[in-house]
Amino acid sequence: MKVKSKIWLEKNGELVIGEGKSRLLKVINQTGSINKAAKKMGVSFRHAWGCLTAIEKRLGVKLIERSRGGRGGGGSILTPAAKRLIRKYDKLRDSVITFTDAAYKRISS
Amino acid sequence: MKVKSKIWLEKNGELVIGEGKSRLLKVINQTGSINKAAKKMGVSFRHAWGCLTAIEKRLGVKLIERSRGGRGGGGSILTPAAKRLIRKYDKLRDSVITFTDAAYKRISS
Repeated sequence: MKVKSKIWLEKNGELVIGEGKSRLLKVINQTGSINKAAKKMGVSFRHAWGCLTAIEKRLGVKLIERSRGGRGGGGSILTPAAKRLIRKYDKLRDSVITFTDAAYKRISS
Repeated sequence: MKVKSKIWLEKNGELVIGEGKSRLLKVINQTGSINKAAKKMGVSFRHAWGCLTAIEKRLGVKLIERSRGGRGGGGSILTPAAKRLIRKYDKLRDSVITFTDAAYKRISS
């Protein structure tokens, strides 16, 4: 057997960030575009946009800075708050996975 | 914000036990009946039975001992293997919750 785990952050009982939303933010960071990120993740722009505004509303912080203009039509970059949120989530998730695997080994032996 | 976690055990990529199945086994233990346990949990007997046989098949161990006869029509009791599985899952889940809460506090401070 193998142990699996999942963690997420909630505020007032509502999801703020889990694996999916963390990945969405990272892909926006890589591509500089919500639209490209949505395509890469196989979700609609509308869905991605809805996710982002929901987290922003729940946390009361902006996650995305949109730059307009230029031929490329501008792009989207993550705010420092969004980067901090991803870092926090990743750090927590990694430490929980490490702990869970070790605890499972301990319990099973 | 609050951190939430979920853990489960898998074998060959298939679920063996998580929160729902652990609760089902405990309620069978309390009621001595798969039928009563299913009713208490708001699932059909068929569903509960399907869960149990799936775990038994995946693990290659019996979880339920059925006693037949008598006026009550017999009952279902957990095997020692099922009790060990619940204990293992509970212990692991509790320690992961404790760790996750502490790790979140550490990261947030």
